[in-house]
Amino acid sequence: MTDIAMIEAAARRLQGRARRTPLLGSPFLDEIAGRRVLVKAECLQHTGSFKFRGGWSAVSALAPELRARGVIAFSSGNHAQGVAYAAKLHGVPAVIIMPADAPRLKIDNTRALGAEVVLYDRATEDRDAIGARLAAERGLTLIKPFDEPQVIAGQGTAGLEIAEQAAEEGIAGADVLVPCGGGGLTSGIALALEARAPGLRARPVEPEGFDDMARSLATGQPQTNAALSGSICDAIVTPTPGKLTLPIAQRLCGPGLVVSDDEALRAMALAFLRLKLVIEPGGAVALAAALFRPEALAGEAVIAVASGGNVDPEMFRTALERFG
Amino acid sequence: MTDIAMIEAAARRLQGRARRTPLLGSPFLDEIAGRRVLVKAECLQHTGSFKFRGGWSAVSALAPELRARGVIAFSSGNHAQGVAYAAKLHGVPAVIIMPADAPRLKIDNTRALGAEVVLYDRATEDRDAIGARLAAERGLTLIKPFDEPQVIAGQGTAGLEIAEQAAEEGIAGADVLVPCGGGGLTSGIALALEARAPGLRARPVEPEGFDDMARSLATGQPQTNAALSGSICDAIVTPTPGKLTLPIAQRLCGPGLVVSDDEALRAMALAFLRLKLVIEPGGAVALAAALFRPEALAGEAVIAVASGGNVDPEMFRTALERFG
Repeated sequence: MTDIAMIEAAARRLQGRARRTPLLGSPFLDEIAGRRVLVKAECLQHTGSFKFRGGWSAVSALAPELRARGVIAFSSGNHAQGVAYAAKLHGVPAVIIMPADAPRLKIDNTRALGAEVVLYDRATEDRDAIGARLAAERGLTLIKPFDEPQVIAGQGTAGLEIAEQAAEEGIAGADVLVPCGGGGLTSGIALALEARAPGLRARPVEPEGFDDMARSLATGQPQTNAALSGSICDAIVTPTPGKLTLPIAQRLCGPGLVVSDDEALRAMALAFLRLKLVIEPGGAVALAAALFRPEALAGEAVIAVASGGNVDPEMFRTALERFG
Repeated sequence: MTDIAMIEAAARRLQGRARRTPLLGSPFLDEIAGRRVLVKAECLQHTGSFKFRGGWSAVSALAPELRARGVIAFSSGNHAQGVAYAAKLHGVPAVIIMPADAPRLKIDNTRALGAEVVLYDRATEDRDAIGARLAAERGLTLIKPFDEPQVIAGQGTAGLEIAEQAAEEGIAGADVLVPCGGGGLTSGIALALEARAPGLRARPVEPEGFDDMARSLATGQPQTNAALSGSICDAIVTPTPGKLTLPIAQRLCGPGLVVSDDEALRAMALAFLRLKLVIEPGGAVALAAALFRPEALAGEAVIAVASGGNVDPEMFRTALERFG
């Protein structure tokens, strides 16, 4: 199980590898929110999202003989790129299993980051069977996207930085809003804050209709989403919280928050205008909650994690056209 | 005259006030350029450009009695916002003289940053006379945009950071490309590099048709641009190099580089895609030169300053539509 010692060990392995991303603010955002807003800019992380932290943490934690054989992951999104780049920098092979109808750009990017991309047909082929066969044949280690202690530890290193940076800003008590899919980033940050900044409280933020974590926290039981697609916040749409991440969130997190797709787009346009950051829809939900849910927050400041920036130009143009 | 001692003194005054902006890169940009590309992200500076450094440096260097009376600046752009915010944080008045036909958003932003905005009619009123009258009546100190030693010193603090960050990245020799208008940022960085990283060489980058600094360096005499408008790179369009900045550039800088407006837009789209940064056209010319002028550069790495990010949504959408 992930604990603060694992997170600090991950931070040592990530030293000089992951970026210490800045905590940014703007008086214009403070005015909208009615309190101080600080944004942890993980969109500036290598590969454009926090996923590089977990990818590096997991790959670097493997025994050298095992690591040398390579790693494998299922993902068409940010986890794919984080694992691919972490493996490349370690000089070990990475196999990423992606649906054949994934966006061309994401397939090309993952290949360009050094991974072998294996495409499968969603309709006729069994992704898990392909992965199991390849892993067995080549001795590859599977890196899960969130329900994996070393991945949670890696994401938790963002929480260590938030604890330090909040102290530098003189913030002792605040909600820390985290875009939440399976809960790896949320639970990692929550563990780091518990140990290093107990006045800061992690809270998951999800898109409307995909608020499995918020409902799981509210009911005390794991909840599932009715749909698996239909939000522009694709990076954080998951069927249900992780088996490892939910208990951590239950113990440490405040209530979940939910925002609409339009609110995420508005937050993207404001981040463009006021912070000069590119944030993807799923990465902008925490900033949206910080700006547009003032009544649901406590304290004179709020910290929002901008978890990723891998957004298509078309979607970004839409955000600017509608809310810029 | 600005020297390294003044720059280091400015850095001490800016400590904890200006952001230490990150130096970012991407393997995708390295591949386009054929060498390592690192981007100094001054678009993430307070008020969205490096101008906050010079503004803070100048305001903080004033004698307290003088400062208390307030400051005045002429600018419809980044210098206005940098000076306004620096004055606000010092708790002293700022008057910014802007043309009445300046974009509404820039007028509103400058007001929102606490400045008193005085509008004048470009056709019928004399800007300098208005400024001189206000300065005399209220005892305001004029903060010039580039030909002012404490402003150059403030901009030079970006060069101190580049020297440190390049060393952290293991880069001992490289061209440092700087978007150049009047030359305040270019000359400040050049002075800092001379003292702290002699293997790094500053080089100005300008838009086609507005390459007064490049031609001044090439001919050894101050050159003037034929036009005063007509480039999308409005932030770095000036009639001629500064009287203080040109001699510094002549002594220390490598030859100037020139890029087209389309190349600036392409660099903006690539910064969106690969760095998750919002850069304005004038702030993107150095990255454009780093990517698209490989034959004009020396060394295995190049550092490009992204000097600002204050771009209208419409212009940014154009960049994405054409090159995203």
